[in-house]
Amino acid sequence: MPQLRLALNQIDSSVGDLAGNAETIVRWTRHSAEQGAHLVAFPEMVLTGYPVEDLALRSSFVEASRAGLRALAARLAEEGLGGLPVIVGYLDRSAAAQPKYGQPAGAPQNAGAVLYGGEVVLGFAKHHLPNYGVFDEFRYFVPGDTMPVVRVGGVDVALAICEDLWQDGGRVPAARSARAGLLLSINASPYERDKDDTRLELVRKRAQEAGCTTAYLAMMGGQDELVFDGDSIVVDRDGEVVARAPQFAEACVVVDLELPGAVADAPEGVVDDGLRIDRVVLSEEPAPAHDAGETGETGEAGGNAGGYAARLDDDEEVYSALVVGLRAYVRKNGFRSVLIGLSGGIDSALVAAIACDAVGAENVYGVSMPSKYSSEHSKDDAAELARRTGLNFRTVAIEPMFDAYMGALELTGLAEENLQSRLRGTLLMALSNEEGHIVLAPGNKSELAVGYSTLYGDSVGAYGPIKDVYKTSVFRLAEWRNRAAVQRGQTPPIPENSISKPPSAELRPGQVDTDSLPDYPVLDAILALYVDQDRGADEIVAAGFDAELVAKTLRMVDRAEYKRRQYPPGTKISPKGFGKDRRLPITNGWREG
Amino acid sequence: MPQLRLALNQIDSSVGDLAGNAETIVRWTRHSAEQGAHLVAFPEMVLTGYPVEDLALRSSFVEASRAGLRALAARLAEEGLGGLPVIVGYLDRSAAAQPKYGQPAGAPQNAGAVLYGGEVVLGFAKHHLPNYGVFDEFRYFVPGDTMPVVRVGGVDVALAICEDLWQDGGRVPAARSARAGLLLSINASPYERDKDDTRLELVRKRAQEAGCTTAYLAMMGGQDELVFDGDSIVVDRDGEVVARAPQFAEACVVVDLELPGAVADAPEGVVDDGLRIDRVVLSEEPAPAHDAGETGETGEAGGNAGGYAARLDDDEEVYSALVVGLRAYVRKNGFRSVLIGLSGGIDSALVAAIACDAVGAENVYGVSMPSKYSSEHSKDDAAELARRTGLNFRTVAIEPMFDAYMGALELTGLAEENLQSRLRGTLLMALSNEEGHIVLAPGNKSELAVGYSTLYGDSVGAYGPIKDVYKTSVFRLAEWRNRAAVQRGQTPPIPENSISKPPSAELRPGQVDTDSLPDYPVLDAILALYVDQDRGADEIVAAGFDAELVAKTLRMVDRAEYKRRQYPPGTKISPKGFGKDRRLPITNGWREG
Repeated sequence: MPQLRLALNQIDSSVGDLAGNAETIVRWTRHSAEQGAHLVAFPEMVLTGYPVEDLALRSSFVEASRAGLRALAARLAEEGLGGLPVIVGYLDRSAAAQPKYGQPAGAPQNAGAVLYGGEVVLGFAKHHLPNYGVFDEFRYFVPGDTMPVVRVGGVDVALAICEDLWQDGGRVPAARSARAGLLLSINASPYERDKDDTRLELVRKRAQEAGCTTAYLAMMGGQDELVFDGDSIVVDRDGEVVARAPQFAEACVVVDLELPGAVADAPEGVVDDGLRIDRVVLSEEPAPAHDAGETGETGEAGGNAGGYAARLDDDEEVYSALVVGLRAYVRKNGFRSVLIGLSGGIDSALVAAIACDAVGAENVYGVSMPSKYSSEHSKDDAAELARRTGLNFRTVAIEPMFDAYMGALELTGLAEENLQSRLRGTLLMALSNEEGHIVLAPGNKSELAVGYSTLYGDSVGAYGPIKDVYKTSVFRLAEWRNRAAVQRGQTPPIPENSISKPPSAELRPGQVDTDSLPDYPVLDAILALYVDQDRGADEIVAAGFDAELVAKTLRMVDRAEYKRRQYPPGTKISPKGFGKDRRLPITNGWREG
Repeated sequence: MPQLRLALNQIDSSVGDLAGNAETIVRWTRHSAEQGAHLVAFPEMVLTGYPVEDLALRSSFVEASRAGLRALAARLAEEGLGGLPVIVGYLDRSAAAQPKYGQPAGAPQNAGAVLYGGEVVLGFAKHHLPNYGVFDEFRYFVPGDTMPVVRVGGVDVALAICEDLWQDGGRVPAARSARAGLLLSINASPYERDKDDTRLELVRKRAQEAGCTTAYLAMMGGQDELVFDGDSIVVDRDGEVVARAPQFAEACVVVDLELPGAVADAPEGVVDDGLRIDRVVLSEEPAPAHDAGETGETGEAGGNAGGYAARLDDDEEVYSALVVGLRAYVRKNGFRSVLIGLSGGIDSALVAAIACDAVGAENVYGVSMPSKYSSEHSKDDAAELARRTGLNFRTVAIEPMFDAYMGALELTGLAEENLQSRLRGTLLMALSNEEGHIVLAPGNKSELAVGYSTLYGDSVGAYGPIKDVYKTSVFRLAEWRNRAAVQRGQTPPIPENSISKPPSAELRPGQVDTDSLPDYPVLDAILALYVDQDRGADEIVAAGFDAELVAKTLRMVDRAEYKRRQYPPGTKISPKGFGKDRRLPITNGWREG
């Protein structure tokens, strides 16, 4: 059987930065060539970045992507890489689609292309379009209707894009009908908790359906609220894993595959789901076999060897997603440093630890802003966090500002509590404007869910690193991070007291969160059912929770929709969280239970 | 030919308030019966409100809608209205759809039903689903596949829902194939500038395609960012307008129609676009003819004028949309009063005028918050606005708070400017928390587009009434409102000086908007091309604008995406504005030109 050395480049790209992304593609292609690859692949929409959202509807951007693709093909040839077939994702438009009411303007397509010999030798577009969760692809794209097959070294390689594998029908059975020797899918599949296991099972199943070895090339990095976790997978046609790439690291996965050669009477015409086979032949001659010992895997983010990268445990996986998401957001927005209000509590402590891991402690600025209700331990814990991590630390008391407002207005109760939080928000923004740091909001998913936060107060910031992390997970991640430090022989970043003391907003004397909220384990369990699983009140009560507590909690969640709309973006972790995948009316008169 | 007296109830409903909406439906049905109607109709999803967004994915809500529909049918019969066929929109689920990856959970449907004799006698679901602009219906619904036809008084009435008329094919030609005597479409079509003309042409065209009189029943009111303008239309099969309802007012449009009776060999089976004819016969006997003189139109919002309501001019139309949108948002959020920071400038003055029209001047609270940079005329103009409108007015100087911050931090330039704006935002929120008013944000579309505003400062508020109104339109609407007052013999609400003086944020001495921005007529023209029409830099320059100015403006717009994400919701006016219909990446590396 012919052998093919496949280079899967699971890399980051930036939405809109066509020139920068092209540069990155050239660099990794050169690296792939140096590894002796016969076929090189990059993720879905790598040239434009993903997701481009409404940029897909601007024709100047679509044309820039198309021109950029042709320029990239030429550039690769100029660099002496024209003899190597390179598969890249980009944004195209359908030449065939007639303008139609309700169809995206300009008929854009989520497309892929094979670049070879300085030319675009084969183009195709995603057939199955996802339009659920974080995806809105019916809004942006018209579907592709071909089954692209490129012959490389005598092997027919069927091509697909992401959702083509997730949904039944279409290119998976069509790859079998086309009698392909390899199915290669390029993806930009956002991270979700536990999705790695789902993806693995999916790819194994689809390989067996396609009847051929299947390579699933993932994206890595972060874009706005989405995080891409890498974890590319290659399985053989029996569903056995051949290679698995690292999580949360850019990598060029090089894998030698022995594959069935193209059949003499390769099918043509329309196959499954109306897909028309679109073939291009680049090379009939099987590639010379490599010494198996050469195969390996290299990554810019540190590197390791072997076809099966070590797996992260669940806590490390989530923590890594938060670090990668934050780092991408800060850099892609053109910032170098971050600013965090440090209360001495666990939320801001975890955010600070994540920030130190993402951008380096020397670029993290913390400010303690005590009021007259702040406890001594809060001030001490904030200072201790700074000492342990090495972040830049200062203290600014808010009492003079508080007194100025209280002298001008008669404020009581909640108004007085929120005022303190808003004075801190204003203080952080003043420092941000003056010194150029990006402000991080410390809110967690539990408090955002029920609205236990102050709009324009602790919600102030450009990014909320833990907005999709429940409070119980905040504790677990803090403990995991400290344990990991010990294992690495480092100082645990988060003060033990920040973890062990009862959570409090400290906006009035003796206040603790449980004055207003159920215990967090109970609260989070109810929220997981209501927010993440869309269960109704009756089902939640039937799951064993107190009816009155459920009713009260759900009311809080419904009323807080308005605050969540104005909360800054943050790393998306869960399948139905408060990132862009949950969309409820604000003025919602519906009451569960 | 048989005569049918049709009652089209163009009313408001509230998302989620199933009980309240049912009550409203019963009340208007009773009114319709009193008018002698033979067939009564209500808008799309009137029972659940529209749009329900992700509530469609919660099965408890879907089941509540289904149960609510059955209860409504029974209730109508109990009230003695069972003999009158009533068509209502609601949320259902498909019993036929098999669970499928990528399909909305529970297979919800945007449905309609005919209620008669205490029962649901016919159900159907929207066939064409819109998934563009403000619509995401592929996310929420599975399409209907029937052509519902109900025979009333010997007339076959074909039924459709909103998008079924906007897209080619489907129920319009199917109504002709089914040989219907009337096509009735129930809608929740959001207002857009100039959409009334588009709708009229659409209905005229579709009536001719369907070959029968066509009734287009619109929704009226506001829900979150959407406004529904009413303006129901009935045209005959030649496209001639038979009746047109008022804009921006609830109304029961009663119209007597002479319609062809049902044909003896009424077609059955599958017709256009795979739609299966689904017939129910309620009454074969033609209804007794009414005296034509009885026909008229009544509205709760006062005023009626026969079968063709007077049209609003363009400025009044937009102003009315802003009033209706704000009133709905305040009420549906359970507030009675609003709070506005009054700078003396035109934006806050227009917002105050809109608020007085929406909720009454006695429920509008204005606060002047001068700093040391505030001019005398600003303070005077704010007081003059209060005097003219009768809104509740107070003054709180921000100098003590400003001094407290400046004493604690070293702030300069932009940081010092933004601080003043944020002190005002904090002050407004403190008053809101203490007194229970909802805060209105005064930002207009021009400044939001380019980011000429302070996040957590003048962006503070629960709702931005004019967030989708360009500055040039702000001036025009202010002048229109003053003229309208004169015509009504009232005091013009907006001080002439607020209109005539050069716009300024007054955050530093002598500052005017044109220090940072192009003149508004030029800016707005560029923004209309870039924001609303998605034109690229080259096209905008080709339209006659200075290349450098275009590049600078587009850069400002791209960089401001982050601010707009955190801006509160506001009335949606334009087809591609900053309401929920424009979705761009925040960290966008793409630069036009």
